[in-house]
Amino acid sequence: MDTEIAGYDFGKVSRSPLPLSALHELETAVGFTAHDREMLVRARAVISDHAEELVDGWRATIGAHEFLAKWFFAPDGKPDEHYKAAIKKRFVRWVVDLVTQPFDQAWLDYQHEIGLRHTPARKNAADHAQTPAVVPLRYLLAFLAPVTQSIRPVLQMSGFGAEDVDEIHAAWTKAVILSVTLWSAPYVKDGLW
Amino acid sequence: MDTEIAGYDFGKVSRSPLPLSALHELETAVGFTAHDREMLVRARAVISDHAEELVDGWRATIGAHEFLAKWFFAPDGKPDEHYKAAIKKRFVRWVVDLVTQPFDQAWLDYQHEIGLRHTPARKNAADHAQTPAVVPLRYLLAFLAPVTQSIRPVLQMSGFGAEDVDEIHAAWTKAVILSVTLWSAPYVKDGLW
Repeated sequence: MDTEIAGYDFGKVSRSPLPLSALHELETAVGFTAHDREMLVRARAVISDHAEELVDGWRATIGAHEFLAKWFFAPDGKPDEHYKAAIKKRFVRWVVDLVTQPFDQAWLDYQHEIGLRHTPARKNAADHAQTPAVVPLRYLLAFLAPVTQSIRPVLQMSGFGAEDVDEIHAAWTKAVILSVTLWSAPYVKDGLW
Repeated sequence: MDTEIAGYDFGKVSRSPLPLSALHELETAVGFTAHDREMLVRARAVISDHAEELVDGWRATIGAHEFLAKWFFAPDGKPDEHYKAAIKKRFVRWVVDLVTQPFDQAWLDYQHEIGLRHTPARKNAADHAQTPAVVPLRYLLAFLAPVTQSIRPVLQMSGFGAEDVDEIHAAWTKAVILSVTLWSAPYVKDGLW
């Protein structure tokens, strides 16, 4: 499956500068437990089946506001549809990976790579695009809100009971925050991350 | 009330480098609406009454793990209790402000000040303390998980119905993410925030 997504390099990227022990500390800080992992496993099929729909929803919000959309514009000032199509597939795969992959060295390494790909270090490189060199960190962080919250209606409409919805929502929220926290590292001044 | 909390300088700090228009864009990005404001108003009394209890809970987690607690240690390697007591009052007040203050220039300015006070620019200054010069950004971001989620049981035990709990939780989550996103600015490399 990996080879079907251009630029999806899970398992093939450089090692994260963060040691695995620090990842485990971050898991503790977000409160991610074995029970949260069980909840993600329970919701894996549903979330994976709705991954593209979720990404389409988030991207509709981005596309509706130029201050969010312009980071995906070509030099002609219009959305770079080739770039957007390429990164969409990887965004969908991030959702699937988030409920599938263990939080191990390979996952840690790839979160760092995703972070780099939002900064001047690597943005556009995988897709040979010419969009702006960064997605500002404040928008990645702000988007934690829709990305963590939009899972609830999906779970509710998929037949999970109220308690399961709450627990899966909590586990998903912790996983998303953990992932995006790792993305933030390349944005931050030396010694402050 | 302001003068009762040492170092609480809401309304008296420098102007945020972020223009108010960019704050409104961030509100759009997190999805904060007039309905969310109504939900925060509805929950204002309950959340304010439980603000200290919430802060105590978050700080218990911090205190239980040295990798989180050490940023509040004095040079002797032990928790700086004077410092911790001083910042606790302001942390409690942040909870109250978050459900009370409009997201206007004064609130924007103070979020930037809070961010600075977690970095070498201003940490320790308000309290004349000698703890480490930073709280690393990754822990601020990771703590979005417990801070956003711990509101649910408070709301549930306070008699709100299931729908109100969901909507207040969503509004609170957006507000917390908006605030901490603003805190992150002083951590970030030029041009990437």
